[in-house]
Amino acid sequence: MVDILHRIGIENATAAEAYQALATLDGLRAWWTEDTTGGTGPGEEIAFRFERGGFDMKVEESEPGSRVLWEVVGGTPEWIGTRIHWDLRQEGDWAIVLFKHEGWREPIEFMHHCSTKWASFLMSLKRYVETGKGEPHPNDVHVDDWD
Amino acid sequence: MVDILHRIGIENATAAEAYQALATLDGLRAWWTEDTTGGTGPGEEIAFRFERGGFDMKVEESEPGSRVLWEVVGGTPEWIGTRIHWDLRQEGDWAIVLFKHEGWREPIEFMHHCSTKWASFLMSLKRYVETGKGEPHPNDVHVDDWD
Repeated sequence: MVDILHRIGIENATAAEAYQALATLDGLRAWWTEDTTGGTGPGEEIAFRFERGGFDMKVEESEPGSRVLWEVVGGTPEWIGTRIHWDLRQEGDWAIVLFKHEGWREPIEFMHHCSTKWASFLMSLKRYVETGKGEPHPNDVHVDDWD
Repeated sequence: MVDILHRIGIENATAAEAYQALATLDGLRAWWTEDTTGGTGPGEEIAFRFERGGFDMKVEESEPGSRVLWEVVGGTPEWIGTRIHWDLRQEGDWAIVLFKHEGWREPIEFMHHCSTKWASFLMSLKRYVETGKGEPHPNDVHVDDWD
């Protein structure tokens, strides 16, 4: 089992603000994909849609200001059953976000792509919380020909 | 042992152009750090320097248009002995770069940071080859408070 790991710091922001971007539909629509629907509470499912398909996430945990955990229950077969961890904390003027997309069965080429693409969306999350403006799909930054 | 994986695609570029950006001092200076010195041939060492330290890489393999492999021989202790793989290939109009920073002993928080920062520098590499202008240190994009 192999994981995708990332860390961003959001300047002049609180962990509570970062949490809002991960635990509300308006927040998620502002940095990942504009087509986000469903429920963001524990036990509910969020549907993220893109031009070429999408993902359904079951919210396993959601603790204000500290943690969000999703399990992938719908979407591309390589993602089903994997889990996406968001751990938040405050460090002075920075909201720190530790990201883990856990449980990939093999380090396939698609996992390389997803790692870079996650980083790009995390930078969109950072900019959204810092400035009010992210780059969610369909206006996202493209990293390669699969994108 | 855990690895950092990434994939970028460079549009309207050849694998030979991507190789030049990885195997010449002028290329490396244009997307990673302006303070790059040493030799880029097999068996030689490249010194990459940043405001807060740097890395020395021994070139283990360098095959035009297809592959570069570095071993980290100097720098932050967590990096010593790890290896950085660059695998290049052509897919139509795209130069595809598969990146692997292999051999981390533990998935420490610093590894999360380095994964995101590598993605950011890979996007700088992509822009450099596509447009002639990257964002090498000291003009690099910052991802968090360790940066």
